[in-house]
Amino acid sequence: MKRDTPGRILLDHGSGGLAARELVRGLFLRHLGNPLLDELEDSAVLDLAGGRLAFTTDGYVVDPLFFPGGDIGALAIHGTINDLAMRGAAPAALSAAFVLEEGLETAVLDRVAASMGAAAAAAGVPVVTGDTKVVPRGAADRLFVTTAGVGVVPAGVRLGAACIRPGDRILLSGTIGDHGVTVLTRRAGLALEGDLRSDTRPLHRLAAAVLAAAPGGVHAMRDPTRGGLAETLCELAERAGAAMEIEEAAVPVRPAVRAACELLGLDPLYLANEGKCVVVAEPGAAEAVLAAMRATAEGRGAVAIGRVTEGPPGRVEMRTAVGGRRIVPPLAGDPLPRIC
Amino acid sequence: MKRDTPGRILLDHGSGGLAARELVRGLFLRHLGNPLLDELEDSAVLDLAGGRLAFTTDGYVVDPLFFPGGDIGALAIHGTINDLAMRGAAPAALSAAFVLEEGLETAVLDRVAASMGAAAAAAGVPVVTGDTKVVPRGAADRLFVTTAGVGVVPAGVRLGAACIRPGDRILLSGTIGDHGVTVLTRRAGLALEGDLRSDTRPLHRLAAAVLAAAPGGVHAMRDPTRGGLAETLCELAERAGAAMEIEEAAVPVRPAVRAACELLGLDPLYLANEGKCVVVAEPGAAEAVLAAMRATAEGRGAVAIGRVTEGPPGRVEMRTAVGGRRIVPPLAGDPLPRIC
Repeated sequence: MKRDTPGRILLDHGSGGLAARELVRGLFLRHLGNPLLDELEDSAVLDLAGGRLAFTTDGYVVDPLFFPGGDIGALAIHGTINDLAMRGAAPAALSAAFVLEEGLETAVLDRVAASMGAAAAAAGVPVVTGDTKVVPRGAADRLFVTTAGVGVVPAGVRLGAACIRPGDRILLSGTIGDHGVTVLTRRAGLALEGDLRSDTRPLHRLAAAVLAAAPGGVHAMRDPTRGGLAETLCELAERAGAAMEIEEAAVPVRPAVRAACELLGLDPLYLANEGKCVVVAEPGAAEAVLAAMRATAEGRGAVAIGRVTEGPPGRVEMRTAVGGRRIVPPLAGDPLPRIC
Repeated sequence: MKRDTPGRILLDHGSGGLAARELVRGLFLRHLGNPLLDELEDSAVLDLAGGRLAFTTDGYVVDPLFFPGGDIGALAIHGTINDLAMRGAAPAALSAAFVLEEGLETAVLDRVAASMGAAAAAAGVPVVTGDTKVVPRGAADRLFVTTAGVGVVPAGVRLGAACIRPGDRILLSGTIGDHGVTVLTRRAGLALEGDLRSDTRPLHRLAAAVLAAAPGGVHAMRDPTRGGLAETLCELAERAGAAMEIEEAAVPVRPAVRAACELLGLDPLYLANEGKCVVVAEPGAAEAVLAAMRATAEGRGAVAIGRVTEGPPGRVEMRTAVGGRRIVPPLAGDPLPRIC
């Protein structure tokens, strides 16, 4: 069977790129669509119980389960906290649902659960409900976990692609590519991982600092996970109906990540991050937001990387280090499965 | 490798029975425990945003994906709505996270998503956020879906095993075993499924009717899914620190289900239900609650099946149809994997 057999799910459909968008828009929204889901933000914001509640979910299927800097458990806790934080919510509680393969070493599950407990405690966000299913050998690969989360959105906070305006500045909390390249090299058993380490971490404190620094001046926040910074900016630009322009020289990439990317033929712009945040802020607020980001441990390396323009809706352009310009297209093909 | 190799996850750990309880208490609570998780109710109830919020999650790995009366998609929607409803919450919104196997026919996913959309619309509870991961061929069996849900708990409603008192009546909304036996016979390709049909359906309207009929008089509600009525009663009794006594003759089992169980050597008391509800109510409220249940489509067959006693904590005893008594033990071994 050809990999691109029409009518079949391909690895691309899980990439966070164009194929994934088609699946979401062409299939899921057709059957499940409603005003909240249609927003396709990192979490839905509900008016509920007299307040505004953010609600999100993500499945984790990363391979290997353990990698330098983290594991599937910490990733699941951090990822869901981050999806809440990106809507401006204070994360309140998490759920965890496990699918386990019969025969999995209990010690592996124990280590994952311990990591989840430590990550939840460090973030101050408890896991309050859960579920476990076991499937026969061969019906799943060891362990998958799906987390969901709820959080409270403070009054007046409104964040999302729809709030972005031409002129806005694009800020990035630190280096890119660390998570993606770490998981890929570890999976491939490559020996170049000495300096590579996933950036998985919770971003809710950074997000709160950002919002406190410029109430009303922050328009959108996103964590550039699957599909990386490139896909995140393309999606934001498309949904904002605006263009974006970024400076290649301004985007920080650690030397070890850059070296690994060159060796493996990867573009760090498209690699998953699990502890980084893109902030789109009004020009007048950008300096204050940057300063607030840099004052946190997780945003110490924050930089301004570009701005929103009135160019063609959805177009992301990069000024290269040597002075040229190139279009940054949405992720298409070349999937990196099981990266998170 | 022996099936009972110590230190490995066994199918039993997903059964909803004793092994599953051990895994939850011995491993998950050790690492993730906190007052809300420790309650081990169908959903956690949070004080949040000025109201009380119920929050729950469940993974679905049922095999086959489609069966008479339902499919994995409808099951996921109903199951999460029901876990909210069992805490007395009005379900407000759901999430859905898919793990897909590369090569899955898109038509299968389309059919599942359509069923989820129809189930969500019929229940009046939207799916507001989601996620999709794709894993390479062989790393998962076609399609798993994990739903989470949030709902609002009305002021004054407090339900749970801890509220149960000796003397309480045990009510059941209808026949048992329908879902479990339908999935098992369909999976085995047996030809006796003409009269068998899953009972999957949402129970939030039934639950609301129950609570309206006797404010304060209802102590606990549970949907007897994995592990069936037997396991649900054993868990409730253990957690309530009370005993229970039920009448075998009062527990309704459809003739086709009984026949299939006899053929397959199964006890309907331990088979999963996906549209039934156990209600524990004060003696003085039981008649009103029963009448309210019977006035709903999903509770038309409601019956009183027994009562809570001051016997040994956790003991569930059944008076058999022929006048004897037998202990109904918690589920141990004999797992029925991938039933939901």
